[in-house]
Amino acid sequence: MATPRTRTRKPKAASPCETAGHDDLTGKEGADMPVIRLGYIQVRVTDMEEAVNHYSNTLGMKIMATGEGGPHMSPHGISPGKLTYLKAWDEWDHHSVVLEEGGVGLVKFGYKVSSADDLNEFERRVQRFGTTTQRMSKGENLAVGDGIRVTLPSDHVLELYYEMDYAGTETGALNPPPWPRDARGAAVPRLDHCLYTAEDPELDERFWSECLDFRAGERLITDPSDPELIGTWLFCGQTPHDVAVIKGPNGKLHHFAFLLEDWNAILRAGDVFGMDQVSIDVGPARHGITRGTTIYFFDPSGNRNEVFSGGYLSGPAFPPITWTADQLGRGIFYTSGEVNERFTTVVT
Amino acid sequence: MATPRTRTRKPKAASPCETAGHDDLTGKEGADMPVIRLGYIQVRVTDMEEAVNHYSNTLGMKIMATGEGGPHMSPHGISPGKLTYLKAWDEWDHHSVVLEEGGVGLVKFGYKVSSADDLNEFERRVQRFGTTTQRMSKGENLAVGDGIRVTLPSDHVLELYYEMDYAGTETGALNPPPWPRDARGAAVPRLDHCLYTAEDPELDERFWSECLDFRAGERLITDPSDPELIGTWLFCGQTPHDVAVIKGPNGKLHHFAFLLEDWNAILRAGDVFGMDQVSIDVGPARHGITRGTTIYFFDPSGNRNEVFSGGYLSGPAFPPITWTADQLGRGIFYTSGEVNERFTTVVT
Amino acid sequence: MATPRTRTRKPKAASPCETAGHDDLTGKEGADMPVIRLGYIQVRVTDMEEAVNHYSNTLGMKIMATGEGGPHMSPHGISPGKLTYLKAWDEWDHHSVVLEEGGVGLVKFGYKVSSADDLNEFERRVQRFGTTTQRMSKGENLAVGDGIRVTLPSDHVLELYYEMDYAGTETGALNPPPWPRDARGAAVPRLDHCLYTAEDPELDERFWSECLDFRAGERLITDPSDPELIGTWLFCGQTPHDVAVIKGPNGKLHHFAFLLEDWNAILRAGDVFGMDQVSIDVGPARHGITRGTTIYFFDPSGNRNEVFSGGYLSGPAFPPITWTADQLGRGIFYTSGEVNERFTTVVT
Amino acid sequence: MATPRTRTRKPKAASPCETAGHDDLTGKEGADMPVIRLGYIQVRVTDMEEAVNHYSNTLGMKIMATGEGGPHMSPHGISPGKLTYLKAWDEWDHHSVVLEEGGVGLVKFGYKVSSADDLNEFERRVQRFGTTTQRMSKGENLAVGDGIRVTLPSDHVLELYYEMDYAGTETGALNPPPWPRDARGAAVPRLDHCLYTAEDPELDERFWSECLDFRAGERLITDPSDPELIGTWLFCGQTPHDVAVIKGPNGKLHHFAFLLEDWNAILRAGDVFGMDQVSIDVGPARHGITRGTTIYFFDPSGNRNEVFSGGYLSGPAFPPITWTADQLGRGIFYTSGEVNERFTTVVT
Repeated sequence: MATPRTRTRKPKAASPCETAGHDDLTGKEGADMPVIRLGYIQVRVTDMEEAVNHYSNTLGMKIMATGEGGPHMSPHGISPGKLTYLKAWDEWDHHSVVLEEGGVGLVKFGYKVSSADDLNEFERRVQRFGTTTQRMSKGENLAVGDGIRVTLPSDHVLELYYEMDYAGTETGALNPPPWPRDARGAAVPRLDHCLYTAEDPELDERFWSECLDFRAGERLITDPSDPELIGTWLFCGQTPHDVAVIKGPNGKLHHFAFLLEDWNAILRAGDVFGMDQVSIDVGPARHGITRGTTIYFFDPSGNRNEVFSGGYLSGPAFPPITWTADQLGRGIFYTSGEVNERFTTVVT
Repeated sequence: MATPRTRTRKPKAASPCETAGHDDLTGKEGADMPVIRLGYIQVRVTDMEEAVNHYSNTLGMKIMATGEGGPHMSPHGISPGKLTYLKAWDEWDHHSVVLEEGGVGLVKFGYKVSSADDLNEFERRVQRFGTTTQRMSKGENLAVGDGIRVTLPSDHVLELYYEMDYAGTETGALNPPPWPRDARGAAVPRLDHCLYTAEDPELDERFWSECLDFRAGERLITDPSDPELIGTWLFCGQTPHDVAVIKGPNGKLHHFAFLLEDWNAILRAGDVFGMDQVSIDVGPARHGITRGTTIYFFDPSGNRNEVFSGGYLSGPAFPPITWTADQLGRGIFYTSGEVNERFTTVVT
Repeated sequence: MATPRTRTRKPKAASPCETAGHDDLTGKEGADMPVIRLGYIQVRVTDMEEAVNHYSNTLGMKIMATGEGGPHMSPHGISPGKLTYLKAWDEWDHHSVVLEEGGVGLVKFGYKVSSADDLNEFERRVQRFGTTTQRMSKGENLAVGDGIRVTLPSDHVLELYYEMDYAGTETGALNPPPWPRDARGAAVPRLDHCLYTAEDPELDERFWSECLDFRAGERLITDPSDPELIGTWLFCGQTPHDVAVIKGPNGKLHHFAFLLEDWNAILRAGDVFGMDQVSIDVGPARHGITRGTTIYFFDPSGNRNEVFSGGYLSGPAFPPITWTADQLGRGIFYTSGEVNERFTTVVT
Repeated sequence: MATPRTRTRKPKAASPCETAGHDDLTGKEGADMPVIRLGYIQVRVTDMEEAVNHYSNTLGMKIMATGEGGPHMSPHGISPGKLTYLKAWDEWDHHSVVLEEGGVGLVKFGYKVSSADDLNEFERRVQRFGTTTQRMSKGENLAVGDGIRVTLPSDHVLELYYEMDYAGTETGALNPPPWPRDARGAAVPRLDHCLYTAEDPELDERFWSECLDFRAGERLITDPSDPELIGTWLFCGQTPHDVAVIKGPNGKLHHFAFLLEDWNAILRAGDVFGMDQVSIDVGPARHGITRGTTIYFFDPSGNRNEVFSGGYLSGPAFPPITWTADQLGRGIFYTSGEVNERFTTVVT
């Protein structure tokens, strides 16, 4: 049996970071970061056939299952109608994208944690934070085990779970080639992160940080002398971000992103989007924030997707980066320093 | 104050992975992986001036300090003579490479952990494992705080620490550009991992796994029916590997690696190596194991370096990959499937 | 003295190309294509210091000479004031960009031909075409030999010459490295092409084709049943285009372009533009026409520049490509299929 | 009938190039360079099925025709047996590779010229040079028009022709996408060049230069004080080379090369070669000579292939580059500066 260990608040970092007061804002302590990653996202689509064609043929995901769904599968108590479950080629869990027929916009997203114990600990913290939680049982989501469902301060529905049926990657686990020979379209390897809007980004940043041990790698503030938080990019592992929150209406999604190998894969993806007449929002482009490269685009129903690549390695000791509002354009799109209106206003 | 939490052994994974019996070999449990990364490596060099030129002008690192050193700084009780401390541009801690005048080969490497508590816990586990540990105090290594020094079963000297003086990256933490305008040579952003040899790789794998919560992402075995471990690639965060062990003499280093942005940076680095007449071992090449891209080369004293890029995201739930000895060549260099003799025999 | 040579119309190509009637439009015959490339371009700049900083530090060109200029150097009979001559690192001739203080926009461009004989032949053809020509003598342009000056049907000033002082590339001609170690900024290797506007693009296409043996590699037409030419991309060697003409006001320049190595160099250039706060028009992007990749941007005076990379190999037997106006967006920017208003309206 | 045209020797270039005496060696004059490119290459293969699988599935070429062949198709008067004709996706002529069943090694290669007139002129020059020529008639090679067959001083069989049946590229000539969606394997866009061995490279260089207007872009010599030519890289258009000759046995082929888009396509091709267990000679690598990037590999019969990318734009005014034998390694493989024995000794 493993030895229990206690966690105490870490003394203030010996290494002063340039973002004064950051530690106080995010309340970070030790290095326990047991949330693993964004595991799945469920969005509504107006036309299932068009949507499946987009995620399957254009993005290259594999259809894993379809279903009628049922009332229990919707956090809003409404029958979701038809559902389609898809998986990217380098993912080993059963699915990462769930399409729900009817409308547009985010239904919910799920983050995978490491164990039932972690789930219990997170539940305690979330309740202490004053947020509503609900237990969800195995099978409530197809192929997903027990978990908890949380309504964030910003009204988004977050599910935490530690088991999903294992499906295996397309390249397998025995002497695998570096990529699958029969990849289709943009051939996205995996789901990466999502970015949503919140009326009070600081409150949601506190939620992710205090309840789930996320850390803010980059923060966009109005101005250093009297800082108000406009956006925050939080990670739980070593990527630049696993979730991001920007100021905007509660309950809305800005985009969810798939990871690509590199800048060249961004070009190839863009070529596929051109061939398939995908509606492009912005890109190819370089981000200032995260240092990644990107294309933003819309699925046929209007949900904004991103293909994202690059960026640094973050991690527990990462010194957070501050962006000031006067450099907002450069932070979002580094090359031009300009952000189009659609990018800043359209959310679903 | 934070609530203590207990850790219990996780029930066997619901998702069967294709590597039968792997869990038994590595003995992994929860997702606590508080070792952050390879923080520094100290190697001996025959000619300090040539060595500094290599790490500074060819690789692009910054000289952070030089010193006479002292007896206490050598784990072997020998005065190390002159020392040079260098840092890569995207690293924020004081240094990551320490050059020690005299000879060639590994002196020791340091892994950063998250807190003093983690250090205590690791010390207990290491002692329970039956490995010799020694306390090291702040200042024993320049700019490094308290820690423990461990002699691995394979005779390598490992130091664990949780504090190093903060120096900041070259691009800063306020509205940073994606890379420093005045980068030199190959402009390596950071130290990434090291690979050493051990007479009993399985024993060292158990050490990293049981004492330090590393996980084996990829394992090279003789053959599935009667598996003997030839090599193991272990991670503590989300990269494909933070340390690797292959069968060979105890106490020897195969290489230590710097991370590059992508395959294009590998080409540019190779061009710089050509201009500077660096001795190349192999590459540019694609790895089967880790899926990364690489060049192996030697510093002027004969220590093998690597520039490495790419690879997948690992993490707590990563299903381990198995390579069999008949595919060893493909595992090491995927394109050709061939490994030169120097690569398999020269260690320092 | 060289013998004049007559050119007879080639029998219709054995290989039918998909662009019906194209041969009739461009009137191409044999394979004589003695114009070598766009050798230099001269543009006006409002502020010489800012302009030199842009071409020198941001684009990485080398300042080769500065001069007061004189009335004979301006095709409009006006003293051009101060002049600055710059060269890119992989160019061996004395200069490729000439900045002229005062105003904004194109002064003239020069295409290099192979010999004095070619010059004579071209002069005869141009005169037969009914276009005004003028002899220019060695030294009239700094470092440039004898030539002829032609006012195109579209009022642009074209100079043809066969000699320019040899300066050598930055990597030299003896055992050269692949690129110069001390390159600055975007480090453009060479000038590539220019695109200008003409009220009657078909007339200018005929000029380039009949007088100078250029060929149209791609043509943008209103619609195949009743084709009107909107734009034409012409080459004299094996690149996708050495000059391009699109419908618009006479005498105006849309952009001139520098060649970069590949898509990765486009990203790096864009990063430099972000660091230097260069005004970006569009990009990074993929072209449909030419298949190249690109960023359009403005120098501090408002002259539009491009960094361009990729594209196919054209050449004498290249079957021309047709774009129809309904696919104009896709032709210009393949990923999005959308062209911003600034791109289509701002010319200098 | 076309008027013959005389060519006069150009006055010595005003721009001195760093390669003293080069003009005398290659005897170049004007800019007439009517050979367009390497159009096809015919090689023997021991096993047609394996060979077709290699060129079709691994390299991604399209099978255009198969045939029994006949005695007239072999320059050696021997029935060639079965033949397979293949085309790369961005080529518009009927085929570029011809596989001939039986044995291994070069049968012949064909370069395309611009017109029947050019053919006549070349025939005269070749005869004046003292080389044996033979007329070949339309249909002697499938889909190829009239031409001449020349036995080079080095015993290789060269065919010159100006017509081949038009097949069109895979992306078409109307609003084409940048690449074909259904590309297979390495998806090579086109044949690029070949390199053969000759006992007297200087004699063959003179042949290509004096008879066919090729120019040497790079030359490898023993040493500048008493230069003997070891290798020469000659171009007829604007690529770094369309043919190359190195010292070695007469009548033998070192390799023929396919063009790839960029360094990233080189990596992808290498991955495909790994998946298909292609026998690799060297690479991925950077060339010093031509500045290109490369992988050398063998088809299943042992003919050496190359995938090649990058390099500069050459052209009529290109100042030739000299490599000296002491830098031979760097010239061939820039990163390592080392050439393996197989690369220098195995020819077919």
